Amino acid sequence: MKPDAIQLDAQGRLHHFLTIEGLKPALLTEILDTAESFASVGGQTVKKVPLLRGKTIVNLFFEPSTRTRTTFELAAKRLSADVLNIAVSTSSASKGESLLDTLHNLQAMQCDMFVVRHSASGAARFIADHVAPHVSVINAGDGCHAHPTQAMLDMFTIRRHKPDFGALSVAIVGDILHSRVARSQIHALTTLGVPEVRVIAPRTLIPKDIETLGVRVYHDLRAGLRDVDVVMMLRLQRERMQGAFLPSEREYFHLYGLTEERLSVAKPDAIVMHPGPINRGVEIASGVADGARSVILQQVTHGTAVRMAIMALALRPGPEV
Amino acid sequence: MKPDAIQLDAQGRLHHFLTIEGLKPALLTEILDTAESFASVGGQTVKKVPLLRGKTIVNLFFEPSTRTRTTFELAAKRLSADVLNIAVSTSSASKGESLLDTLHNLQAMQCDMFVVRHSASGAARFIADHVAPHVSVINAGDGCHAHPTQAMLDMFTIRRHKPDFGALSVAIVGDILHSRVARSQIHALTTLGVPEVRVIAPRTLIPKDIETLGVRVYHDLRAGLRDVDVVMMLRLQRERMQGAFLPSEREYFHLYGLTEERLSVAKPDAIVMHPGPINRGVEIASGVADGARSVILQQVTHGTAVRMAIMALALRPGPEV
Amino acid sequence: MKPDAIQLDAQGRLHHFLTIEGLKPALLTEILDTAESFASVGGQTVKKVPLLRGKTIVNLFFEPSTRTRTTFELAAKRLSADVLNIAVSTSSASKGESLLDTLHNLQAMQCDMFVVRHSASGAARFIADHVAPHVSVINAGDGCHAHPTQAMLDMFTIRRHKPDFGALSVAIVGDILHSRVARSQIHALTTLGVPEVRVIAPRTLIPKDIETLGVRVYHDLRAGLRDVDVVMMLRLQRERMQGAFLPSEREYFHLYGLTEERLSVAKPDAIVMHPGPINRGVEIASGVADGARSVILQQVTHGTAVRMAIMALALRPGPEV
Repeated sequence: MKPDAIQLDAQGRLHHFLTIEGLKPALLTEILDTAESFASVGGQTVKKVPLLRGKTIVNLFFEPSTRTRTTFELAAKRLSADVLNIAVSTSSASKGESLLDTLHNLQAMQCDMFVVRHSASGAARFIADHVAPHVSVINAGDGCHAHPTQAMLDMFTIRRHKPDFGALSVAIVGDILHSRVARSQIHALTTLGVPEVRVIAPRTLIPKDIETLGVRVYHDLRAGLRDVDVVMMLRLQRERMQGAFLPSEREYFHLYGLTEERLSVAKPDAIVMHPGPINRGVEIASGVADGARSVILQQVTHGTAVRMAIMALALRPGPEV
Repeated sequence: MKPDAIQLDAQGRLHHFLTIEGLKPALLTEILDTAESFASVGGQTVKKVPLLRGKTIVNLFFEPSTRTRTTFELAAKRLSADVLNIAVSTSSASKGESLLDTLHNLQAMQCDMFVVRHSASGAARFIADHVAPHVSVINAGDGCHAHPTQAMLDMFTIRRHKPDFGALSVAIVGDILHSRVARSQIHALTTLGVPEVRVIAPRTLIPKDIETLGVRVYHDLRAGLRDVDVVMMLRLQRERMQGAFLPSEREYFHLYGLTEERLSVAKPDAIVMHPGPINRGVEIASGVADGARSVILQQVTHGTAVRMAIMALALRPGPEV
Repeated sequence: MKPDAIQLDAQGRLHHFLTIEGLKPALLTEILDTAESFASVGGQTVKKVPLLRGKTIVNLFFEPSTRTRTTFELAAKRLSADVLNIAVSTSSASKGESLLDTLHNLQAMQCDMFVVRHSASGAARFIADHVAPHVSVINAGDGCHAHPTQAMLDMFTIRRHKPDFGALSVAIVGDILHSRVARSQIHALTTLGVPEVRVIAPRTLIPKDIETLGVRVYHDLRAGLRDVDVVMMLRLQRERMQGAFLPSEREYFHLYGLTEERLSVAKPDAIVMHPGPINRGVEIASGVADGARSVILQQVTHGTAVRMAIMALALRPGPEV
């Protein structure tokens, strides 16, 4: 089965959202266009639409993330869905119930969607492989594999500033090796037709054969940023510092931290992005994060609209539901 | 006061739901019939009814149970009630506030229902004895005493498959001694007129004088299962293994684990039930749990409808509310 | 900037609610009058009004308090708002995100109100200084500084029993030094025109220069309670016992615990108040807490109406929103 096959229903419409890999450009564009229609909801006096009233959405978090859980909870509530938050580490898992039994129980309760966060790559796919046909699974981050809703809100934010993906040069900077965000961003950018996608990182933080994804590798920050339209910074996972992957934070910032001076080689109207939370002074200088070219908080705002769009599309009424 | 007196209002209608013991058959049947009317809600596009809109239901959990809390939260939300989840161990209890002060505060906030889970037998009754007249208490499991909503969803599931309680032979298998589920099941089955209720367990896990509840005791699984219509397995509390109650898990499964082979002595159309979460390979073989005669996931589905019915009946408008 | 300036919008209407200090009597009266209109909602069959439907209210708790969180969650839900509960200690704060980044992210998600609880005095004000204009901040207790919603529900309760603030004598008893409640009560009482506000405590628990707030200091309980209309007990923070502030609990009760006998010197129709949770037998005898003159549970009931009023006023539509 192709990586995208499980994500689509018989009519080729979105059913699960697990990875960008293999999805068609038209489907990504449909998500972005749907998100545009929700983007105004957040600014209204009544920030709700009744689209998913009576649906039950379960935040199934196997690793804690208040931040991500909150964004999905907010999106679901603005669609008028009911939300159950389940932190699995504190649930029946400790009573020895298997993951599949937990899933089968939740879907027996006629829940409609699982938003899954897990530390293991492939967990969301595994769950999608085993749920009943009426349940949609959204990947909210699985190990080092994918974080597709983050990538889509990034695409939404880029399109707001640079509508023509076909004319862009984009650099992704940081720990590419361990980043589920980077992997999803690369698939989204190349699918949407961005002709130049660069990854910039020390050799220890670049996966082997990354070029097969259609990107160009840079180890020098200045060279990689030259003339790009978009700079996508990654969060540095500080725990990587423990191992042999990285020198000190200070050394990392010295080589790969984004400063105003370094950003000056990018296009004059380049935008700066970051998935948050920011390590100020580690991967990005505070002045850049808060500066005129930063669209970091716009990413957060757009995140609600994009997640609403993905939830609404996956749960839209149709012949298969 | 008879055990049921506190549960009914002056008109004999359900007010608290603490134990099956002492309730009349007509009242249990009313719960089952009301649950039938809710059973279709879960399958609708909009899985909500506005029956308890504006009511406040508090999940007051003195011992953690994500699973049970979730089922009540879901039932309450599908009735359009507002839900407050309070884990008492992490609340003012640690500031030295007494249980009664906590209760009085919550009812002063004009909450309408407490769903109570507690490790001490009698806790739900104690709370019902002390709340204001406008507050209903639902027992979501108290120590080894009772778990009446579980028993009612079991009865609902049985009735769906075997509509005539008066013609049934039912076996309950496992740790009868420590099981609040078993106690509530026995009361429900005998109240609804099941002529043959058997309990099957090693001698160390059978309460003394259990026959006074109207059951027949078996220590041999094969003998006890012969010709029954319904097999109700209990969850083995693994912590009982520590004490002198039980040999090893392997030994337990060898003697009391439900396998296809052992099930073969039951009626050909016998159904297999389990309150979950399952210990696969301890009290039940995986093949049986997932097999054609298992109705375990149906129990979960029916649990929402039955809990909706109990909540709706207890909070129905009336002269006393 | 005067302490109240940040709390009001350009039209002089409530925007943030951080402290009573500096607020005009008319504004406090507006809160009390608005709360009267909500006080009946809790007694209705449908305990909800649609006033804040579609608004997003975030409980942002930097120190845990199930009790206080619950009261705000309940008030928000009865106004039909969506509520997000965020315990910051368990969130991105542990990933090294700064407080301001957390705030900026939440407001980028178009949340409308932050209800803030923090162990540091001034935290709510700091947050109000840094949020976007569309976000209202409610102080749910900051260190030893202020707890203004508690003070307002106290005023509401007093007015229900003693409508003329200008004729009252009120005593506040307990650990004045560390109490955010006492500070807010003193400002509320004096602003509303109470001519006699007394504070009663051992010397070690009275702040220096407290008289400048317009109160009279008593160290003797009997002398301080003589002829008062209202007795406002404070909760004794047991952790203060560790230090040099206090002798034993037994000794404290001997000198400052409120008993029926001591209360007898107050006016015959004096009411007794306590913000809860109560330490029975430490600052107050059980008989007094549960007695005919106690209005402690009325305070809890009124708390919902008063918090609804403050939320509704702060988020009312207007030129600046």
